[in-house]
Amino acid sequence: MDSAFAIADHERYRDHTVELPNSIDLSHHLSSLAKNRQSSALKDLYRYAARPGMIGLAGGLPNPEIFPFLELSAQVYTHDALGITPATANVGGGGGGGGTGSDAQSMVKKPSFFEWLFGKKTTTETITIGKQPASASPLDINLNTLLQYSSAQGHPALQAFIREFVSKVYQPAFADWDVLLNIGSTMAWSHVVFMLLEPGDGVLYEEWSYPGAMNTASPLQTHKVSIKVDGEGLIPEDMNKVLAEWDEEKRGFRRPRVLYTVPTGQNPTGATMLAARKKIIYDICVKYDIIIVEDEPYYALYADPWQSQKHQPKQIGARYADVEHHTDSKDTDEEFLKKLPPSYLKFDYQGRVIRMDPVKKASYPDFRNKSAALVAKLLAETWKYDGYIRWLRGIKATYAMRRDWMCDLFETVFHLEFDQTLALSQHIRWVTAYERTAPGMGGAGAATIMDEKRGFKSNKAIVSFVPPTAGMFVWLAVHLESHPRFAQIKDADGPEGVNKMLYELWTELAEKNVLVSPGYFFDAQPGVPHEGTENFGFFRLSFSMANHEQMESAIKTIYKVFVSFFQEK
Amino acid sequence: MDSAFAIADHERYRDHTVELPNSIDLSHHLSSLAKNRQSSALKDLYRYAARPGMIGLAGGLPNPEIFPFLELSAQVYTHDALGITPATANVGGGGGGGGTGSDAQSMVKKPSFFEWLFGKKTTTETITIGKQPASASPLDINLNTLLQYSSAQGHPALQAFIREFVSKVYQPAFADWDVLLNIGSTMAWSHVVFMLLEPGDGVLYEEWSYPGAMNTASPLQTHKVSIKVDGEGLIPEDMNKVLAEWDEEKRGFRRPRVLYTVPTGQNPTGATMLAARKKIIYDICVKYDIIIVEDEPYYALYADPWQSQKHQPKQIGARYADVEHHTDSKDTDEEFLKKLPPSYLKFDYQGRVIRMDPVKKASYPDFRNKSAALVAKLLAETWKYDGYIRWLRGIKATYAMRRDWMCDLFETVFHLEFDQTLALSQHIRWVTAYERTAPGMGGAGAATIMDEKRGFKSNKAIVSFVPPTAGMFVWLAVHLESHPRFAQIKDADGPEGVNKMLYELWTELAEKNVLVSPGYFFDAQPGVPHEGTENFGFFRLSFSMANHEQMESAIKTIYKVFVSFFQEK
Repeated sequence: MDSAFAIADHERYRDHTVELPNSIDLSHHLSSLAKNRQSSALKDLYRYAARPGMIGLAGGLPNPEIFPFLELSAQVYTHDALGITPATANVGGGGGGGGTGSDAQSMVKKPSFFEWLFGKKTTTETITIGKQPASASPLDINLNTLLQYSSAQGHPALQAFIREFVSKVYQPAFADWDVLLNIGSTMAWSHVVFMLLEPGDGVLYEEWSYPGAMNTASPLQTHKVSIKVDGEGLIPEDMNKVLAEWDEEKRGFRRPRVLYTVPTGQNPTGATMLAARKKIIYDICVKYDIIIVEDEPYYALYADPWQSQKHQPKQIGARYADVEHHTDSKDTDEEFLKKLPPSYLKFDYQGRVIRMDPVKKASYPDFRNKSAALVAKLLAETWKYDGYIRWLRGIKATYAMRRDWMCDLFETVFHLEFDQTLALSQHIRWVTAYERTAPGMGGAGAATIMDEKRGFKSNKAIVSFVPPTAGMFVWLAVHLESHPRFAQIKDADGPEGVNKMLYELWTELAEKNVLVSPGYFFDAQPGVPHEGTENFGFFRLSFSMANHEQMESAIKTIYKVFVSFFQEK
Repeated sequence: MDSAFAIADHERYRDHTVELPNSIDLSHHLSSLAKNRQSSALKDLYRYAARPGMIGLAGGLPNPEIFPFLELSAQVYTHDALGITPATANVGGGGGGGGTGSDAQSMVKKPSFFEWLFGKKTTTETITIGKQPASASPLDINLNTLLQYSSAQGHPALQAFIREFVSKVYQPAFADWDVLLNIGSTMAWSHVVFMLLEPGDGVLYEEWSYPGAMNTASPLQTHKVSIKVDGEGLIPEDMNKVLAEWDEEKRGFRRPRVLYTVPTGQNPTGATMLAARKKIIYDICVKYDIIIVEDEPYYALYADPWQSQKHQPKQIGARYADVEHHTDSKDTDEEFLKKLPPSYLKFDYQGRVIRMDPVKKASYPDFRNKSAALVAKLLAETWKYDGYIRWLRGIKATYAMRRDWMCDLFETVFHLEFDQTLALSQHIRWVTAYERTAPGMGGAGAATIMDEKRGFKSNKAIVSFVPPTAGMFVWLAVHLESHPRFAQIKDADGPEGVNKMLYELWTELAEKNVLVSPGYFFDAQPGVPHEGTENFGFFRLSFSMANHEQMESAIKTIYKVFVSFFQEK
């Protein structure tokens, strides 16, 4: 289940119990490359092969009897192994791995993150795949078939599982959709790029976007066209303006026909787009005949907003109790699904949405590194649909807890001010972190005192961020204007000077053993000013890997380095 | 080990114990697409991540603690599980699977092909991969690392294994080669296509070639330029002529710069090219600055030529004793390797050879369907280099035996005449099969009688073939001229009429439950006459899957159908 492509295949999969339109003809979007693809003549022959009694001397398949693998087995978590009500985060935290490079080492000795998080409750089971088929069903999972299997659509059992998931969870608004399995989202996006784009075409991206996706399209010398974002993602007004005012002559290329977007827990900004705005964006795409490619690695991680501990002090466990029943039942699974923002597919009555589900990020490894056989066995036969939903709830709870760790630590170490604009949705309300002016910064006790004495804060805003509701990232907007020489540097060196300031800050953090991602890695149009945020520098902080202790140390270091940086003469 | 790309990487891997030249600069071959590729900016950051004590908030990796797989294990054959001295093929044969479509079913009940072939001697062992690393070595194979691993080069342990294999077995003639892992040969070839070709470029193919490869290049609207072949593959004189007389204006595109070739057990012709001719082809490629892409799915299947049972009647086991010691030792492994035709890499002093090793065909499943973790564990840690060589010997023996089954059955059922031209290498000597004029065709007894009474044969040549020394295919040249209405059809309808005759014959076989591949599936330049073989129609017969009983039934059916076809009024 690496990518669910919504592709027209009239009638084949039509669900006659619902009245949905078929997709419209969008074949004018196909690139000349795609139009020139030929299907293999050999494959025409396969349909004869199924005839009973047929002696097959036609295929060039290797003899499965001499494949060296006779049986595969795996010890896996049961679908309900992950708790959905994490305990308080004030516990120091066990293993869980540190930096990207040193995980392997740090995990050899330390106790499992799970032992701390869920006690000794985690349950496992063993799945086994034999060499010989147990039945003649095409859904049978066995090594002889799987090791040969060469359909572009993947194993039938996994196909069936994904179709059930797409139909129940995403609920496309057109009838004739199909799914294709890919070996990773980069590969899936690469296929889409070559299927839809001509050399020199434009692609619409969030103004801060995932470099891996943008690089995939760069060999075709595509132009990146950035759309402004806020804490809920793409801003419809800006998207509409860019498209309505498109001047092909001035731009040098035709109006873009493809939008690449990460609607949930966007990388790097962490923004999540909800239903209302998605509907508006979809309608704009209909108006301008745009194909929407939604890349959703963090979809199931969507959780309720972070709640300030100071303004509404509660145990984290108690918070969760407010927003979600922590019982295991079909009802609570349903509740979990209902809370998820709808996919663009839900609005897609024309078949112009291609959804990519690179589930590796959230739930299990992708097909490049893991056996499709075992994934099929685990999902389609062991966990099944209900079990997978329950597993996703555990994943969601885990990342939500880690998000809370990071936001809580910002609140403990910095002085936070909350945007009080009532008109704004919680999703786009910024939190601004200030330097503390009193001694004893950091530490839970000090923080509480500070909170009671509002006004002690310095007027130096250091960073702002929107606490994310999904994904793995906090997108820090650094108030560079708080730097005494900012105006001078900006006047003298422009955006390059600003980037240089940010790079110095980044290096200083790295020297103090905190590695973050500089925002300009993600700039969809480097050199073009980000209107409204020109005086900010951005850092992306990931909360997926560090344990609580490491995270606390990192946020304290960030505080010290930033405060010192802004005091620079 | 799906593809060993010979790519210049000066010094990194230089072996200072041998004096080999570095590759020459061939970067002018890169396509504009390849030149426009950008490396990910994010990846620059990874080098900081290894610093001890670093707290990583930069990467966007999922937390490995919540991957559902805790331990993988597999029951595998030991490296010496396959015998290298197959017993007589006159045994009726057990399972082994029938047609492409019905394998699954037929294998449920039947005894293992191995039980019959090697008695109960087959030995297995269990390999296990745990979640946590056992050491901090980058070569350590563990799930936490493998499930994350995202290097384009694949797991370090598998990399190291492949480097050892390439260096010992292929022995490239230049120093600075490198290997890349791909998820399959089609994907590898696709990468090469987009790396080297501009839209509309020409590619050199064997005149009969693998459609999957040709289709992969077709989206770029490449032109197929076919080179004539004989039983040893590409004919150097023809290749030289095509290139020397290249008329860009007349052809409409520049002289091809890329050769796609399958040198060993070529698909579909079964031809294998030996050292002397390879050297000539390589020199032609140097002269015309051509990149050689050698696709070698059947490399390790290279065996000694088929020996007629009638002319030199022997037990198959005894034949093998003649040509290879059947003991397990380093010496006999060395002997096996020495017999293999050299790779083009062995002659490649410039770095213009890209070798693709889609080992799935011969030895184990590819990375799309099987865990790279398990493959790494099996090859790099369990079998290791020596064990893998021994495993390949077993694979070779298995397919050589199946080749012998098919050729022996042709000899039993048809009347064979052997080309007696002494000047010809055994590799390109055709065998021609005639109708028998005596009653009681087929059956071992009848065949022996027939053999004693040479001259009984009809003068109707039916099919010719070169008994293959590698691969999985017998390439049958059907003597269409033996058909009473051939001249008439050819005059009236030209090549189309000839194809129609072949299609009728193919359908008749399919109706009688024998499925073969029509040769025109593999035609590199449909419509262009195959000089010298215009009066033949071709079928590709695979001997990889059918068991002996099925194969015997198929060859008898082929005899009956062909004889009847040529008697047609």
